[in-house]
Amino acid sequence: MPEPETPLHERPWENVERMLGVDEALVRVLSAFAPLDPVEVPLLEALGMVLTEAVVAGEDVPPFRNSAMDGYAVRAVDTLGARADHPIHLRITGETPAGSPLQRSVAPGCAVRIMTGAAMPEGADAVVRFEETDEPARPVVGEPDRERPTMVGVTRPAKPWDNVRPAGEDVRRGTLVLPSGTRLRPAEIGLLAALNRPTVTVHRRPRVAILSTGDEVVDLGPPLGPGQIRNSNSHTVAAMVRRLGGEPSLLGIARDSVGALRAKLAEGWHADLIVTSGGVSLGDYDVVKDVLQAEGEIAIWQVRMKPGKPLAFGQVRRTPLLGLPGNPVAAAVSFEQFGRPAILKMLGRRDVAIPTVDATVAERLDNRGQRRHFVRVALERDGTGYVARSAGEQGAGVLTSLVRSDGLLVVPEHLEVVEPGARLPVQMLDWGL
Amino acid sequence: MPEPETPLHERPWENVERMLGVDEALVRVLSAFAPLDPVEVPLLEALGMVLTEAVVAGEDVPPFRNSAMDGYAVRAVDTLGARADHPIHLRITGETPAGSPLQRSVAPGCAVRIMTGAAMPEGADAVVRFEETDEPARPVVGEPDRERPTMVGVTRPAKPWDNVRPAGEDVRRGTLVLPSGTRLRPAEIGLLAALNRPTVTVHRRPRVAILSTGDEVVDLGPPLGPGQIRNSNSHTVAAMVRRLGGEPSLLGIARDSVGALRAKLAEGWHADLIVTSGGVSLGDYDVVKDVLQAEGEIAIWQVRMKPGKPLAFGQVRRTPLLGLPGNPVAAAVSFEQFGRPAILKMLGRRDVAIPTVDATVAERLDNRGQRRHFVRVALERDGTGYVARSAGEQGAGVLTSLVRSDGLLVVPEHLEVVEPGARLPVQMLDWGL
Repeated sequence: MPEPETPLHERPWENVERMLGVDEALVRVLSAFAPLDPVEVPLLEALGMVLTEAVVAGEDVPPFRNSAMDGYAVRAVDTLGARADHPIHLRITGETPAGSPLQRSVAPGCAVRIMTGAAMPEGADAVVRFEETDEPARPVVGEPDRERPTMVGVTRPAKPWDNVRPAGEDVRRGTLVLPSGTRLRPAEIGLLAALNRPTVTVHRRPRVAILSTGDEVVDLGPPLGPGQIRNSNSHTVAAMVRRLGGEPSLLGIARDSVGALRAKLAEGWHADLIVTSGGVSLGDYDVVKDVLQAEGEIAIWQVRMKPGKPLAFGQVRRTPLLGLPGNPVAAAVSFEQFGRPAILKMLGRRDVAIPTVDATVAERLDNRGQRRHFVRVALERDGTGYVARSAGEQGAGVLTSLVRSDGLLVVPEHLEVVEPGARLPVQMLDWGL
Repeated sequence: MPEPETPLHERPWENVERMLGVDEALVRVLSAFAPLDPVEVPLLEALGMVLTEAVVAGEDVPPFRNSAMDGYAVRAVDTLGARADHPIHLRITGETPAGSPLQRSVAPGCAVRIMTGAAMPEGADAVVRFEETDEPARPVVGEPDRERPTMVGVTRPAKPWDNVRPAGEDVRRGTLVLPSGTRLRPAEIGLLAALNRPTVTVHRRPRVAILSTGDEVVDLGPPLGPGQIRNSNSHTVAAMVRRLGGEPSLLGIARDSVGALRAKLAEGWHADLIVTSGGVSLGDYDVVKDVLQAEGEIAIWQVRMKPGKPLAFGQVRRTPLLGLPGNPVAAAVSFEQFGRPAILKMLGRRDVAIPTVDATVAERLDNRGQRRHFVRVALERDGTGYVARSAGEQGAGVLTSLVRSDGLLVVPEHLEVVEPGARLPVQMLDWGL
């Protein structure tokens, strides 16, 4: 390793073998990304995206005073002293069909039939539920034409504003309802609809160009020749990108030649992120790092993690590039740790940490070598908590144990042995949705 | 209520007011759905879907014996007795570039330079890592043309198969890798790529037609007239459907007339599920239930839950119909309890329960009326657990408190008062992904 002439932290792209901690590597990766520019999209398309505008209510929700119950709109003062054995009788002077509020006022001594959500008629200040009247059992379906009573007996006094929802109960006009930076879940989509917003502005989706490298890598289709392996990493990464809300594009496989790699990278310059796999070890046959070094600013790091020690990161013609290791599980775990947060940051998400649960470790685990070990585990419910068990062979190439796992148990760098019963966080790969 | 002539459970569509428990209602709803027919889709499109085929490995993964480390392929027997102060010297007879395995065998007393993942040459049965040789520091980038040594000193004995990955280490040809019924996450997508599967067959996505009802309901766009409210439910439900992997189509708003409703329903017959909102209370103005009754088999139930007591369910011309209440939060909560599991079952999912966490309740909560109460709560981390706090006003129309909530705290029917410190499950509305 050449002797550095200036401190390493001032030369972030310095291409030397450096051992970084996971957290330090993440800080460096994230520093190269910012939330993407705003785009106006139809409301439903904004699901899962993050607002770039503050949404202020232009109208009250609900827009008018309405009934919270099925019953009679009355003047509360008219019901004073009502009892079950001494009902107070009011004249029924109308009904309020939905959508066309009653124009007439409710006069003293009168009541208007009203259904949940209907506008309160003028004059009335309370709703008496059917259950608090002598109204016979409400008509069941199939008997719509039953004769209506002309009088109703109230059996319990109402207080003013009983069962009345004021206009703006949910949202008052002029209120800041959703600040910029809000992520839009179905409830937010519904609220934006209630506020009459057919479109909203959100951070656009990141375009992620995905590239595998290596003369030995073959894409789906032809049978494998001797020494060839199938390109699985591009597909794993593309699925991860899509699940996060990014737009993956597969650039295919770059052969280990300068020309081939330059050509593939040229296809990726339009992207917000290029993700490669393979060609980042310190082995002999990695022309990849040479090309990247020439085209941009790329550092190869060693990250104190397992699986997934080698990692490349930098920029090629101003496009950030994340170079994952070639082993399938090392690639997937490295993408979870570094690619996922980069994409979430571009989407405008503030909390980019992977959701975790705490779990009790069922088995003894070794962790020699001072690396943060992401152990593939299956989780079981145990009373109110979780128990984590190894999901099988932990080799960096064993995808089947990733398939069998619910999450990645995080064993800290300094912990050489994890004893059964220890409590450790598990990064959830999925939450069943 | 008319006296039933046969037991109610033999007349599932009987249109009478019945009070069902949430669990009983769910069983009835789910009994009307089955996993949808298989469809062949490109691999990446299958993300989140459920396999209808059992995937058996057609090839070994990895396809050939390869090196787990960067180093030298050797005959283990040649390294017996090697020590740091007494290295055993082997002649370097070649290198193994990726993708074109060495044709020559490794002869006794010889070694072949090999990189991680490269095919093991014939003759060799172990890999000695660079760290266990006297090989000078591996070339750093920028020095690719440095002269290669012709001999290497091994400083530690290798055992047979040290650092060698056998063919089929991950998957053996002929193994059942993913059973029918497997949901495809990114790791499964990657494994299917490794098995050379460009397409897979999965249960197709359910088409969900969504309809709001009511003369008072207005879609996005025009200003509200007196007594009118905005259609938010269709948009909330559409977002929920899309998030689950269904394909929502918005049919708009049906006026409270038989003709209007019949016309809208006709647009929904192609769907796998029609979801309506509004028109399921026992109020006076609900022509909806009359039309549904005439067109198909529909029951209006009262479900012992809060918010969201009324629920309609049945079939219209063989298309299942789920009728949600009109109040925005009641509609959303009811859809979570009944629509979500129906969609997941159609997608072929076996576990359709909403993911929950256990939380400590921070505040006293009242739950009169023997209903299961879904309380909108915000969660905070507290050491290794969660604390649940009310997310605000719990009225059935208050969408803003749903927006402020992370989940729905489930208060059992029989629990009239929840004291602070109680532990209750919280249905997670979202898991941050």
